[in-house]
Amino acid sequence: MNISHIEHIGIAVEDLNKAIAYYENILGLKCIKIEEVKSQKTKTAFFQLGQTKIELLQATEPDSPIGKFIEKKGEGLHHIAFAVDSVKKSIEEASQKGINLINNSPTDGADNMKIAFLHPKSTFGVLTEFCEKNK
Amino acid sequence: MNISHIEHIGIAVEDLNKAIAYYENILGLKCIKIEEVKSQKTKTAFFQLGQTKIELLQATEPDSPIGKFIEKKGEGLHHIAFAVDSVKKSIEEASQKGINLINNSPTDGADNMKIAFLHPKSTFGVLTEFCEKNK
Repeated sequence: MNISHIEHIGIAVEDLNKAIAYYENILGLKCIKIEEVKSQKTKTAFFQLGQTKIELLQATEPDSPIGKFIEKKGEGLHHIAFAVDSVKKSIEEASQKGINLINNSPTDGADNMKIAFLHPKSTFGVLTEFCEKNK
Repeated sequence: MNISHIEHIGIAVEDLNKAIAYYENILGLKCIKIEEVKSQKTKTAFFQLGQTKIELLQATEPDSPIGKFIEKKGEGLHHIAFAVDSVKKSIEEASQKGINLINNSPTDGADNMKIAFLHPKSTFGVLTEFCEKNK
């Protein structure tokens, strides 16, 4: 497996606009993109900070993964995404080593990425994503 | 406020050695340092990944902040730390803008850093740290 850097940190929020205002007005970051990911029932806002993005995630429907997460754990840090050269090879390698996968094959994510998630039960509670820019 | 990059991501774990083995053997990262922070009743392990470190945190006593966090929320993502040019100026600015602070003045953290935390009630559920390398 070849991880180059942390591609993004996903943060679950209840109100995207209020959270964007905090990241812009208090932390001084700049929102570079807002994108709806219909397959995930999620609206996202991105901030670039050095090599890594902060991805704020708001549920667009209560039964979305983000809505369920907030209901259970409250707002806060949701997942970590590692940039890899090949999502397919990375999940195959993790699976061979006994890690449970959420996605058995790469799927489409926000920001023109190919992505797959490892199950947090296998990763010491951290929802972990691999991602690779689509060419 | 001048944030240059994400200095580290803090992750609460129950068993530091088991978690280190996962980050090394599955993700292929290398543990660069293990350090005990007695003031926080915590043992930490660091991995460098591009600009950002991953900081695994294990409680050394049940009543430590990490022990309480795991009891309440389970293992997982714990905090995000931003590298700033001045922790003192950054917390003053945040406070003036209405953000609640956990540390009203910079304190000593792991890895030879001056640090301060913002309260997650003010930061949309994300325990947020500012840090600055001691000169």
